[in-house]
Amino acid sequence: MKILVVLGPNLNLLGKREVNIYGTMTFPELVDCIEQEAEKLGMEIEIFQSNHEGAIIDKIQKSAHFDGLIINPGALTHYSIALRDCIAAVGIPTIEVHMSNVYAREEFRKHSVIAPVCWGQISGLGHLGYLAALHVFSRKEEEA
Amino acid sequence: MKILVVLGPNLNLLGKREVNIYGTMTFPELVDCIEQEAEKLGMEIEIFQSNHEGAIIDKIQKSAHFDGLIINPGALTHYSIALRDCIAAVGIPTIEVHMSNVYAREEFRKHSVIAPVCWGQISGLGHLGYLAALHVFSRKEEEA
Amino acid sequence: MKILVVLGPNLNLLGKREVNIYGTMTFPELVDCIEQEAEKLGMEIEIFQSNHEGAIIDKIQKSAHFDGLIINPGALTHYSIALRDCIAAVGIPTIEVHMSNVYAREEFRKHSVIAPVCWGQISGLGHLGYLAALHVFSRKEEEA
Amino acid sequence: MKILVVLGPNLNLLGKREVNIYGTMTFPELVDCIEQEAEKLGMEIEIFQSNHEGAIIDKIQKSAHFDGLIINPGALTHYSIALRDCIAAVGIPTIEVHMSNVYAREEFRKHSVIAPVCWGQISGLGHLGYLAALHVFSRKEEEA
Amino acid sequence: MKILVVLGPNLNLLGKREVNIYGTMTFPELVDCIEQEAEKLGMEIEIFQSNHEGAIIDKIQKSAHFDGLIINPGALTHYSIALRDCIAAVGIPTIEVHMSNVYAREEFRKHSVIAPVCWGQISGLGHLGYLAALHVFSRKEEEA
Amino acid sequence: MKILVVLGPNLNLLGKREVNIYGTMTFPELVDCIEQEAEKLGMEIEIFQSNHEGAIIDKIQKSAHFDGLIINPGALTHYSIALRDCIAAVGIPTIEVHMSNVYAREEFRKHSVIAPVCWGQISGLGHLGYLAALHVFSRKEEEA
Amino acid sequence: MKILVVLGPNLNLLGKREVNIYGTMTFPELVDCIEQEAEKLGMEIEIFQSNHEGAIIDKIQKSAHFDGLIINPGALTHYSIALRDCIAAVGIPTIEVHMSNVYAREEFRKHSVIAPVCWGQISGLGHLGYLAALHVFSRKEEEA
Amino acid sequence: MKILVVLGPNLNLLGKREVNIYGTMTFPELVDCIEQEAEKLGMEIEIFQSNHEGAIIDKIQKSAHFDGLIINPGALTHYSIALRDCIAAVGIPTIEVHMSNVYAREEFRKHSVIAPVCWGQISGLGHLGYLAALHVFSRKEEEA
Amino acid sequence: MKILVVLGPNLNLLGKREVNIYGTMTFPELVDCIEQEAEKLGMEIEIFQSNHEGAIIDKIQKSAHFDGLIINPGALTHYSIALRDCIAAVGIPTIEVHMSNVYAREEFRKHSVIAPVCWGQISGLGHLGYLAALHVFSRKEEEA
Amino acid sequence: MKILVVLGPNLNLLGKREVNIYGTMTFPELVDCIEQEAEKLGMEIEIFQSNHEGAIIDKIQKSAHFDGLIINPGALTHYSIALRDCIAAVGIPTIEVHMSNVYAREEFRKHSVIAPVCWGQISGLGHLGYLAALHVFSRKEEEA
Amino acid sequence: MKILVVLGPNLNLLGKREVNIYGTMTFPELVDCIEQEAEKLGMEIEIFQSNHEGAIIDKIQKSAHFDGLIINPGALTHYSIALRDCIAAVGIPTIEVHMSNVYAREEFRKHSVIAPVCWGQISGLGHLGYLAALHVFSRKEEEA
Amino acid sequence: MKILVVLGPNLNLLGKREVNIYGTMTFPELVDCIEQEAEKLGMEIEIFQSNHEGAIIDKIQKSAHFDGLIINPGALTHYSIALRDCIAAVGIPTIEVHMSNVYAREEFRKHSVIAPVCWGQISGLGHLGYLAALHVFSRKEEEA
Repeated sequence: MKILVVLGPNLNLLGKREVNIYGTMTFPELVDCIEQEAEKLGMEIEIFQSNHEGAIIDKIQKSAHFDGLIINPGALTHYSIALRDCIAAVGIPTIEVHMSNVYAREEFRKHSVIAPVCWGQISGLGHLGYLAALHVFSRKEEEA
Repeated sequence: MKILVVLGPNLNLLGKREVNIYGTMTFPELVDCIEQEAEKLGMEIEIFQSNHEGAIIDKIQKSAHFDGLIINPGALTHYSIALRDCIAAVGIPTIEVHMSNVYAREEFRKHSVIAPVCWGQISGLGHLGYLAALHVFSRKEEEA
Repeated sequence: MKILVVLGPNLNLLGKREVNIYGTMTFPELVDCIEQEAEKLGMEIEIFQSNHEGAIIDKIQKSAHFDGLIINPGALTHYSIALRDCIAAVGIPTIEVHMSNVYAREEFRKHSVIAPVCWGQISGLGHLGYLAALHVFSRKEEEA
Repeated sequence: MKILVVLGPNLNLLGKREVNIYGTMTFPELVDCIEQEAEKLGMEIEIFQSNHEGAIIDKIQKSAHFDGLIINPGALTHYSIALRDCIAAVGIPTIEVHMSNVYAREEFRKHSVIAPVCWGQISGLGHLGYLAALHVFSRKEEEA
Repeated sequence: MKILVVLGPNLNLLGKREVNIYGTMTFPELVDCIEQEAEKLGMEIEIFQSNHEGAIIDKIQKSAHFDGLIINPGALTHYSIALRDCIAAVGIPTIEVHMSNVYAREEFRKHSVIAPVCWGQISGLGHLGYLAALHVFSRKEEEA
Repeated sequence: MKILVVLGPNLNLLGKREVNIYGTMTFPELVDCIEQEAEKLGMEIEIFQSNHEGAIIDKIQKSAHFDGLIINPGALTHYSIALRDCIAAVGIPTIEVHMSNVYAREEFRKHSVIAPVCWGQISGLGHLGYLAALHVFSRKEEEA
Repeated sequence: MKILVVLGPNLNLLGKREVNIYGTMTFPELVDCIEQEAEKLGMEIEIFQSNHEGAIIDKIQKSAHFDGLIINPGALTHYSIALRDCIAAVGIPTIEVHMSNVYAREEFRKHSVIAPVCWGQISGLGHLGYLAALHVFSRKEEEA
Repeated sequence: MKILVVLGPNLNLLGKREVNIYGTMTFPELVDCIEQEAEKLGMEIEIFQSNHEGAIIDKIQKSAHFDGLIINPGALTHYSIALRDCIAAVGIPTIEVHMSNVYAREEFRKHSVIAPVCWGQISGLGHLGYLAALHVFSRKEEEA
Repeated sequence: MKILVVLGPNLNLLGKREVNIYGTMTFPELVDCIEQEAEKLGMEIEIFQSNHEGAIIDKIQKSAHFDGLIINPGALTHYSIALRDCIAAVGIPTIEVHMSNVYAREEFRKHSVIAPVCWGQISGLGHLGYLAALHVFSRKEEEA
Repeated sequence: MKILVVLGPNLNLLGKREVNIYGTMTFPELVDCIEQEAEKLGMEIEIFQSNHEGAIIDKIQKSAHFDGLIINPGALTHYSIALRDCIAAVGIPTIEVHMSNVYAREEFRKHSVIAPVCWGQISGLGHLGYLAALHVFSRKEEEA
Repeated sequence: MKILVVLGPNLNLLGKREVNIYGTMTFPELVDCIEQEAEKLGMEIEIFQSNHEGAIIDKIQKSAHFDGLIINPGALTHYSIALRDCIAAVGIPTIEVHMSNVYAREEFRKHSVIAPVCWGQISGLGHLGYLAALHVFSRKEEEA
Repeated sequence: MKILVVLGPNLNLLGKREVNIYGTMTFPELVDCIEQEAEKLGMEIEIFQSNHEGAIIDKIQKSAHFDGLIINPGALTHYSIALRDCIAAVGIPTIEVHMSNVYAREEFRKHSVIAPVCWGQISGLGHLGYLAALHVFSRKEEEA
């Protein structure tokens, strides 16, 4: 099973700033943590981070051969209809992940233009959200 | 680790009706599935279903000794501020779970009055959402 | 033909208070009036009143063997998505009835969360609304 | 008892188009069906259809001698305040009828500018809605 | 003078949790405090707490013989139109009381569906709000 | 204990006009009634009425030595952010009083820009609202 | 000076119905009253009433030679953008008149789609509104 | 007949600035023009201008002996609920006048908090609006 | 190929008024221009203009035998749900045309109730919009 | 005549996915089809596709020497005010084209931030929309 | 160069209260600080503070001879259309200054009715905002 | 003191187009003007312009060592939550500058998603806004 993990704008700053919201785990630590869990679950994984909406769309368009997409679109969640259209067009089963509980923050963070074209959404469980998404894909393959 | 799983109105009908939205797994099968996973993870679990808002509130008020609450409030998600206040008051770490992707359905289903007082929310992954929530609690304990 | 008539919160007070809005017919008189009409039309009927949202949902869940449901949800009309989900799940042909013309009252009474999952709605004709609903079910059976 | 039945824009197309929404009964069949029921109930009836808002208003203004008005204003339901003012001014007891359940369709169909000045509204029961309205007027006369 | 005091969902948790919002006085202490004040004022008093909307409605329906109702509907304040209809139907002079200043909290707490059918509302004065309501009823009787 | 009572625009017309809304007690009678109650409670009191927003702000700015402020801002309630800022800046514990139940009147009267910076609000109990506010301050001092 | 007076839907019913809103002056009396005032002021006048939006537009399109237009569009005020466009295109100085104070009635009556393309609007002075409009046109001619 | 004419904030600047909106007639010229018309109509008149909301309210409160009030509240039109309450309380028949067509300007100028408590409103006819208002009061007296 | 061109209210005034918005081409010139293009493309064409919503609906109902409908509904675009229902019912492929760019004008002109039931919309290209619509129908036939 | 055709995010996926919405013509086929039509009309053409908002803005800024711009901004239509500002600043006559009828899809697709700064918009005619835009530019040149 | 500095309601309390929002500089210190900077820049300056909307309007009306106006309207920013109209009428180049960042506070503080008629706005830089405004006026004069 | 100046999409077109809104100063002239002022104030400065949201975010992420950020985000102001999050995360004191008065333009330009995370905002003073921002940073350093 081959999973693409896409991380949007500013997620490369993880653990260095606003630790009260996003926790102290740094971006390289998060990458390690996800890769180790994938290995344990016997999954092949690729992690891609960019601050450019266009680069993320280019990447996803070229990834139709993946079995699943785990995406934390960062702030693009709230306005990038181009990203939404891209996910809908490519059609890989997608889980949207947010590390903070977006429903307990500013009003504008409650609205995701991405979620309606995903299989599901996990919000607010910190780095454990990515791991949970991996488990769901793994279990889904077992049950299939 | 002791986890309470609360299921709100109409979830006892699972698998019998509207299978295009909620899937074919029946309510007893869901209960089994959750209990087996809990056992595998070495967790103690209690599952409570009711169609009565008041009964759910009474139950949660008496459950402050649990380590975690997994709740699918069903339709109460969208209006039961009483349930919200109850979860906020009791203060157990809570994960809200929805089996269907509420963000891809009617407009009113996108608004949860419960989510802002939870630790996180999992939406749209069918029965796997409950299992993912169990894994998150289990992993959280490991990391603690 | 077997019809369930469900009456929601405060309808047991009919005829005793707010007669300018709901008329002078008392609750027992309404029950009589509906039962007599059903008898005339050769229908089997059961009438259930409760002030408890949960009790109404329990009742409807156990009534899948009825041929039709006539429901005046009272104030639950405007917020009980749990009742809506219950009616949608059980799937009995349903007519929503309101004795007063809800479209000529407070703004919030114009919105029914129940109506979209019903076959139809009758509003504003006093006790005659229930009788009209019985006639419609009866005629529908004749035409089938 | 003398009843006027007014049918608004496009109702003359009934049964020929969009049968999934409005059913297969044609306009002449509907006219027959209403006339037969009226005869059975011993009512005098007149049926008037027009695609012209002004013509409908002219007609209702000249019909103050009728005992009741059954009106399906078609799309005028949603914006013809002129029709509303006409019904309010003439003051005949009026039942608004819609053949489809307007509360289960597009958002804009949920709002009737006519309903607040009517005695009541019947929505979503197909041709049976007109017959139910006749029965209500008939029964009302009996009870008077 | 006979006064009914009704306390809605979660008010039984008072003083144990969220003391920064609701203060440290416990529920039993609040009951004592209200009862002592009533005694001082020579009033007969009954205090009823429930987490069930239906149970509160049943209670109020049976309390038409009371001279006044003091109600803190808790979270039901914001959505229970059924409770509103009940208070309007029974018609006892009613004072709605909130211990916290609901106008200084979340947006949704500013809207009360109950207030329009009450005689008045007291918000934000802690336990003193209940005592103020007792004094108002007492003084009203003196002036009558 | 020293209490300032501020009465906003048009309250000097009390009892002369719109008695159906505000009752028959005149402004001088209200002043007497409040002063007598204060005397009974052993409080020092000053009553200030003005139709000028600026004059009211000047007055409150110079009253930081009072122990409490009881204010009926009249129509300023709904738009005077300047008055709000003044109360917030001066910081005396404040109770907002309305003689009519503003929640049962026009929509725009339901919104108070003042309430969020007060300790609490009393609405709808006629002249008894002022007396209740006095009692609350008195009791608060006793309990302190 | 040549003035066209246009009266929209249902104004022919004046004085016969809803006299509490529109007064007891009948339509023929209103016509007389306007014609007499015009005569006194030495104005040529034509009065046109119709319940048909299209007929009113046809009429105004053919009236570019008039010096002024006084129009009470009745309910068309609130939605007939076609009438608005017609008045804007023809370009005669126009005064919109309403006999009742539309700002003291239902919310939807406060919005005129016509007013922005008129010279001015007179609302709420009964039949005197038409006479005032005549005086304004007369005076305007004097001052020119 | 005794008429009070009240002119609100900034109307003293008439004719000196923004002549494209308000015309070239200066404030003293307007005063003259109104006084001459009143004299012609045999009316006693008093004209009062102030930039202070409070001063205008004080003035109107002391003017209950006038037979009519003509008021151009200037910008207070859009937010001074205190002025609205004052007019409603004093109860003199009132005509609100605006020199520019407020319905053809910024969105916020379309909403008057004053209009609902007036007898009527005249908007957009320049200085002729005041004269029309005088004529209406004069004619009303004749017809009485 | 047989095309019906329908032009709504006020389009007969083209070229005579508001030339800054709609251009200097007159209505007869537009008719000529469309007819010549149709002839060049070998299409049969009928052009129908009316200021009456009802007449337009009558016409379209009788035109089910046309291969395409080009409609500029004029102001009816924004509110005539009756016209929308008519187009949806008759089912001819329809292109909505506006000569001005409605998206660069008043807010209310941005909303078309007609567009959702059309094949497409062309806005803002002056008389060239009609010709483009003809070309599209012609090309579509070629490709079929 | 020199025309620039700009195609925004995800349009390179045409014909491969979501063919029920966008048709089966692939992106290279569309490019061919547009180039052939341009050749037939004797126009010079350049086609540019990118998933990067910034790249599209860079391109348009450098294209002030083109005679016309045909742009399908894809999802950028709905939020890229930067693209809007770019088109407005560069000032080439622009036609916005959408292949699907955006007015018959999700609510958010109905709003274009681009359209107000364009000459016109063509929506819903599939690949024929681009050809129609070419014809309009060609014809416009002929008429100039 | 002659500059008027106007400070609205409650700004005289600066530095004494809510220092977390407005800083510790007192009102007299602010006055000194502005006056010194003006002296350094060779500007003539007058500073005016009032809690009375009317007094501020009177002042600005009499200040047409100033070269620039720096205004911190305090809470009047959000509702005083009368102040807006005054600034627009008098026409002095105006810079609106707020010491706190109004865009980072309560929602209602984000809307300024004054800003649209000013030359510019400076928000959130504490006392430095006033100095920046002085510099801008000074520099503007240099460049003229 | 080291200041970064970031200029967003289309600001490189300054002075060439839309000079009525943005003035005649070209982009290179603006750069010169800012650099000269910085030199005069003894500040080190770097100016960065890009039409790419991602490139701007990359730049700011690498600029944590600057003492201040002056940013004119151009159109990104209104929707780039990614840019907002970047500024919030990096945490350099930031002043948002707009050359035109955004509060006097289209409605959508009044809303900045960036402003809430800045120290302050300067809007509408042309190129002088950037200089004012430099002065504020310079003065702030002096006072520190």
